[in-house]
Amino acid sequence: MNRNLTEPRPTFVTHLECSLTGERYEADQLHGLSRAGRPLLVRYDLEALGAAVSRETIAARATDLWRWREWLPVRRTESIVSLGEIETPLIPIPRSGGASVLVKDEGRLPTGSFKARGLVMAVAMARELGVTRIAMPTNGNAGAALAAYAARCGIETVILCPEETPDVNVREIAQQGARVWRVNGQIDECGAIVARGAAEGRWFDLSTLKEPYRIEGKKTMGLELAAQFGWDLPDAIFYPTGGGTGLIGMWKAFDELERLGWIGSKRPRMYAVQASGCAPIVRAFEAGQDHAERWEDAATVAAGIRVPRAVGDFLILRAVRASGGRALAVGDPAILKAVDDCARRDGLLLCPEGGATLAAYTQAVRDNLVDEEERVVLFNCATGLKYPMPPADQWLDKDAPIDLATL
Amino acid sequence: MNRNLTEPRPTFVTHLECSLTGERYEADQLHGLSRAGRPLLVRYDLEALGAAVSRETIAARATDLWRWREWLPVRRTESIVSLGEIETPLIPIPRSGGASVLVKDEGRLPTGSFKARGLVMAVAMARELGVTRIAMPTNGNAGAALAAYAARCGIETVILCPEETPDVNVREIAQQGARVWRVNGQIDECGAIVARGAAEGRWFDLSTLKEPYRIEGKKTMGLELAAQFGWDLPDAIFYPTGGGTGLIGMWKAFDELERLGWIGSKRPRMYAVQASGCAPIVRAFEAGQDHAERWEDAATVAAGIRVPRAVGDFLILRAVRASGGRALAVGDPAILKAVDDCARRDGLLLCPEGGATLAAYTQAVRDNLVDEEERVVLFNCATGLKYPMPPADQWLDKDAPIDLATL
Repeated sequence: MNRNLTEPRPTFVTHLECSLTGERYEADQLHGLSRAGRPLLVRYDLEALGAAVSRETIAARATDLWRWREWLPVRRTESIVSLGEIETPLIPIPRSGGASVLVKDEGRLPTGSFKARGLVMAVAMARELGVTRIAMPTNGNAGAALAAYAARCGIETVILCPEETPDVNVREIAQQGARVWRVNGQIDECGAIVARGAAEGRWFDLSTLKEPYRIEGKKTMGLELAAQFGWDLPDAIFYPTGGGTGLIGMWKAFDELERLGWIGSKRPRMYAVQASGCAPIVRAFEAGQDHAERWEDAATVAAGIRVPRAVGDFLILRAVRASGGRALAVGDPAILKAVDDCARRDGLLLCPEGGATLAAYTQAVRDNLVDEEERVVLFNCATGLKYPMPPADQWLDKDAPIDLATL
Repeated sequence: MNRNLTEPRPTFVTHLECSLTGERYEADQLHGLSRAGRPLLVRYDLEALGAAVSRETIAARATDLWRWREWLPVRRTESIVSLGEIETPLIPIPRSGGASVLVKDEGRLPTGSFKARGLVMAVAMARELGVTRIAMPTNGNAGAALAAYAARCGIETVILCPEETPDVNVREIAQQGARVWRVNGQIDECGAIVARGAAEGRWFDLSTLKEPYRIEGKKTMGLELAAQFGWDLPDAIFYPTGGGTGLIGMWKAFDELERLGWIGSKRPRMYAVQASGCAPIVRAFEAGQDHAERWEDAATVAAGIRVPRAVGDFLILRAVRASGGRALAVGDPAILKAVDDCARRDGLLLCPEGGATLAAYTQAVRDNLVDEEERVVLFNCATGLKYPMPPADQWLDKDAPIDLATL
């Protein structure tokens, strides 16, 4: 019924290139990092794309992720795997945020997080290229998305997560048919084990940015935003930044849209939001460095952004600087307060990482980085339901006299 | 940006009427049950509606719940309260269900369940009619939806839930600004306390079907399905049935669409699915009764359908019979197996009530009630993430030698 999933459509991938050196790699082959050890970026024939598709074409299609098929690397319609990747809504939070603040609620995606965008694409490409076994490190949500999509098309998955990963995530991953282990280390240490197995040919390594297609899936956040804002982008975007795939992906989307002439040269200021307990990008941004050192003893309530070292660090820093934005750190108390405020006052339960963007926005307004009139988008990257909430035990005995006035 | 929320649109409510006696009640007033103690149904001037809106009008609008404004009771655009009520996707489950089975994934709605549909409408109407304090009994999800929407527009809420209500629900309700109590009883016993407070004028009673507007919100499930199926309804619908508002609402939607000439007289067979441990509607259906006796000692893992007594029992039974469907009961083991199968094989994590519909479908195919070729919709009424999942503890020591071949 959704023709985006069934209709053959032209594809425009020409090649891939190293994000550091520009070295060229062939399309339609399995790739990991470039020879320089950096992420590969997918390149398209945008001229041909622009001739084949117009903004009206897009407007006439169902509003899901696969609406953007011509911007995506999947060649064969049969490779598509889908669990209903809807366009996520923009929700005003006038009371806890402000009159011009919108939350892009990515928790509505399959498996409850924006990780679905990257993983649906990576799994579809793995399927297209004949992969049968995948491994990945995860702080939780990426693993859940991988498990679900891989289960759906019969690909075997091995998933490693840091010991602190919330129970609900580990259980969700297992329930969706993956083999999952907790490891006494951080996500990059889990990643090292995955890399070793990949080198031994045991599985394909689907770590953040270590394969080229997750970023293409995340790119749809930028494409969607552009369409939702009537091709006139917001003034600022606050993005919870761990591996940073989404920030890099959105930046790539804006570039591709400008080259098509669908948007102008104006860009949102990109604010990369991290937790004070794990802020390698913020430290590098403030020191004027191009790369970020590993953050030791990483600790924050926002597990999704507890990423001590990001392989795409230089891409994040480059996009943030080019946009006129910043990297900002917020403490756990501010994160928890933001989650609480938004739920109590606007009825929207954010995940801690989403709370971090609200806390960072509040701080940015106070520091005059952002004007309250500016159109701002905060990314709530997952449903708040996956996270522990404070207990709420009040007890009423139906068999005893109840003073209704006290309720 | 979504004009469904901001554009003034004509409304067509003429009056309300008692679902049992047909007695007429005025629109634009606060109502509970009818004088006969039965639910009130909202009536529209469908002739005028049909002259004002066409299927093309609908197709041109953003695909959310408020697209159906002309079918809804809210008069003033300013009364609308919204957390992004997207159209929920239809997801094939070929491996665990069958080639022609689609799951309507209602877990993508605000607060993660289809309760958002009814409560967004009831709260908008309460706001329009000047209510400032609401109370409601809940098995969990309805309370969460009420808390969120009421918080968003400053209405105070008191919520009572049975002691067995899952922790995550109670916490979510509290976090979203409601005052919530656990009670040592079932949902109808919580409802009795709410009714007493309403009679004393302490709050407005928003219990299932005790006010007329939740059903109008739930009606949008039927409107959406009709549009998603190209105005040619599926052959059968499996619906998890507690209070039954959604089933009654869909049936009303189909009737209104036929009277507009947008669909024909063909109806899906409606299968009301209950748990063996709480199956009052199934018992009444099988006994040929018009009303259902209270089910004593109700117990099932599917808390959302643990409803011993439904005020709209006769409306459920009437629709099921008129459709040529049935009321079906499934046991907890079958429910849990269905949830597990669907997650492992199709990557879709259902809630237990959604699992019940899959279990009932499997049983119906086996019993030759449904043909495998028929187009079937199962309602997954909430995200599976709200429910306890089996533990998944496998441990890997990064500092010890790891035999990767065993992963």
